[in-house]
Amino acid sequence: MRAALILQQGKPTFVRKFGYTAIMAYLCGNYPIPLLLMSAWLSVAPDSDFSIHNFPFGICRTADRPSPRPCTALGDYVIDLAQLLDAHPLESSSIDQGALATALAQPTLNDFIGLGKTVWQALRRHLIALFSDGGIATRQPDTPAYAYPQKAVQLLLPLQIGDYTDFYSSIEHATNVGIMFRGKDNALMPNWKHIPIAYHGRASSIVVSGIPLHRPKGQTRPDDNAPPIFGITRQLDFELETAMVIGKSTQLGQTIDTDQAQEHIFGLLLFNDWSARDIQKWEYQPLGPFLGKNFGSSVSPWIVTLDALEPFRIAAPAQDPAPLPYLQDNDAHNYDIHLSVQITTPEGQTAIVSRSNTRYMYWTLAQQLAHHTSNGCNINIGDLMASGTISAPDPTGYGSMLELAWRGTQALPMPDGSTRTFILDGDTVTMHGYAEKEGIRVGFGNVSTTILPAL
Amino acid sequence: MRAALILQQGKPTFVRKFGYTAIMAYLCGNYPIPLLLMSAWLSVAPDSDFSIHNFPFGICRTADRPSPRPCTALGDYVIDLAQLLDAHPLESSSIDQGALATALAQPTLNDFIGLGKTVWQALRRHLIALFSDGGIATRQPDTPAYAYPQKAVQLLLPLQIGDYTDFYSSIEHATNVGIMFRGKDNALMPNWKHIPIAYHGRASSIVVSGIPLHRPKGQTRPDDNAPPIFGITRQLDFELETAMVIGKSTQLGQTIDTDQAQEHIFGLLLFNDWSARDIQKWEYQPLGPFLGKNFGSSVSPWIVTLDALEPFRIAAPAQDPAPLPYLQDNDAHNYDIHLSVQITTPEGQTAIVSRSNTRYMYWTLAQQLAHHTSNGCNINIGDLMASGTISAPDPTGYGSMLELAWRGTQALPMPDGSTRTFILDGDTVTMHGYAEKEGIRVGFGNVSTTILPAL
Repeated sequence: MRAALILQQGKPTFVRKFGYTAIMAYLCGNYPIPLLLMSAWLSVAPDSDFSIHNFPFGICRTADRPSPRPCTALGDYVIDLAQLLDAHPLESSSIDQGALATALAQPTLNDFIGLGKTVWQALRRHLIALFSDGGIATRQPDTPAYAYPQKAVQLLLPLQIGDYTDFYSSIEHATNVGIMFRGKDNALMPNWKHIPIAYHGRASSIVVSGIPLHRPKGQTRPDDNAPPIFGITRQLDFELETAMVIGKSTQLGQTIDTDQAQEHIFGLLLFNDWSARDIQKWEYQPLGPFLGKNFGSSVSPWIVTLDALEPFRIAAPAQDPAPLPYLQDNDAHNYDIHLSVQITTPEGQTAIVSRSNTRYMYWTLAQQLAHHTSNGCNINIGDLMASGTISAPDPTGYGSMLELAWRGTQALPMPDGSTRTFILDGDTVTMHGYAEKEGIRVGFGNVSTTILPAL
Repeated sequence: MRAALILQQGKPTFVRKFGYTAIMAYLCGNYPIPLLLMSAWLSVAPDSDFSIHNFPFGICRTADRPSPRPCTALGDYVIDLAQLLDAHPLESSSIDQGALATALAQPTLNDFIGLGKTVWQALRRHLIALFSDGGIATRQPDTPAYAYPQKAVQLLLPLQIGDYTDFYSSIEHATNVGIMFRGKDNALMPNWKHIPIAYHGRASSIVVSGIPLHRPKGQTRPDDNAPPIFGITRQLDFELETAMVIGKSTQLGQTIDTDQAQEHIFGLLLFNDWSARDIQKWEYQPLGPFLGKNFGSSVSPWIVTLDALEPFRIAAPAQDPAPLPYLQDNDAHNYDIHLSVQITTPEGQTAIVSRSNTRYMYWTLAQQLAHHTSNGCNINIGDLMASGTISAPDPTGYGSMLELAWRGTQALPMPDGSTRTFILDGDTVTMHGYAEKEGIRVGFGNVSTTILPAL
């Protein structure tokens, strides 16, 4: 928050302990509290993902109130939405206060999302007004009860996910994988530029950032001339993705045109589509990936709304050949979101191994949604539709170890002198995403997952 | 029910209207009611799917009580389970009566299934005792309030389905499809005899028997030398399947051995995995079927428990090569269930086009479940895992139009003189399943779906 005052950054505990009045007495004597100190409890660093322009939605719980409930983020604070609205009601004749209160007491965001876009938007506007410079929430002397330091909060899976679909919409990724497995001349399948290719994934094994995953076991066939074997995967990989959260359901038979798509999207989150390449390779023909994927996928706890991402909307890449009419997207439905992947070794040394951007998506969110519903397939609030690995054109921005280490042939150096072709036990993979433009910054925070040895 | 009295079959309305006592006075004068008439209201035809040996579970609603709620079937009646237990409590020290009453007031079976196998089994034993010859429920003179004629009941989707997986476990089906698309020498993929191949399907578009589906549209490429087109599918097909309903959840990381698998299965239902072959053909490489499947799948309303199917459990087919140790199934985990598919033309003429049997499954339910969880993928109560098309070795028992009409080359004659290579608008596809042995018959009823023109 550019205009917000940075005063006690990092010291909310100190303020809470000694109290605002005591500190003011110490700092200011008996002078009237100056305007400068009106937002004494609140600070938002300029590089915070959670600026006044963001207000993402998530589910949190705290030691004092262990029930999971909807929340938002601002600077270093997590804001309990029900408690906030108790203090500062959202007064609007178009909002059913009872339904809103009920939705803000649920352990997932689904009911809140189900209230509809007018409610999400009204709440976000309310939050922006409350916390803008001089807003009523910033004029309180002490940290309000609804604001918890991020470290005091546990963030949980924000959604009840009905169905999860994974697209394959980065042409760089599809081309890289194609070159590795089929050679340069047949890299892209004949259907790829006509269809936003996708498959159904497993919803049950999607976990939130911070939940460690065990290295999976599975059937592989490392030697084509010998029988398959069963054991731990030797090729554990991440996939750098974003996923859209469905915000408005459809009935079976209903389609969504590309120009209606935004109405059906609540927001985006970061998605790590963990993959066991050796399991996937042996199982995937002819019906696609299965156990090579469904041992776990990791999501960021924060869902950034499309409204917050609106300043970062950009044109889609040129498409040649032109897609069929039902897939034509005449508006800008791509986003300029910086993405990165960091590996932290078991000893705690870190290396950023990839820098990519959602701008490289060949198929837009609107095209994905139009295609997914073109046969009448119904979608539900809380469904996730992931992008597929988002690889940049530059090799330093490839979105998976498979591509970064080029099928194990180019090991990545780590700061401790070790190397990686795939992910090792004890490694932590952290993905980060943010958009920034003209001083406005909107970020996703992280999705961070540690890999434990196989059970 | 062999021993049950068949008296007023087809006349429950008559009995209800005039009352049991009046009819008895007419029939018997003032004689004491003979033992012969003790179960006057109940009749179960010998060929009923819903014998005293079955007691499947479903969700129903009725005009007098429109809330969806758990029920079972017996003969021509649907029994409201909560109302039944009000009249005839299930007294057992090991059952939490409050939890049972709550579960029997829910609009899906998930909570009831969540009570655990001891509860399902105790309730089924209670039902058998109540309705067996001379059982207390049969000794009532009038049709009890908890018993509704089947035609007075609407049967609904019985489950909240979290995830749906479709296997590919019939060797006849996989071989037939392989011959058509890759020739006889490469019919089975190298992995097929090592892995129970499967893919994730779409849970949102699963509907119950009786819900019509519209012919889907989609992208196809009928001419390999011309660009793809968008339009209605010309190759709408059924797939004859059964699906297991998960009865006990696992945590992420947990595996299920083949000899534990039965503990995790509540029962089976009939599953029609509708397929648009032309859409599927163009889209499926490299990530598998997607829009060619997810426009709709149809399930039978009744879930037949594994307990009811126990008399029909048989050995699995011999497997060569022997599967890896984690897939070895040393018990009989296959079932002898007769399956059939009937097409009803728009004018109402019917033809049975396929007769198959679950005994032809190459991979057993236990092997499917062991494989699905071998990487730690978690499963939840209410998940469906379908078998894949179950084709008999004999061509009259192929489980899809693709195979029956051999890719459109051998049209099937209909009784009205028309022919079918795929399913036409206005056709109704009805699948039926039952098991029978030594006078014991346990059936699934039907899954029946009418295809409407594209929207």
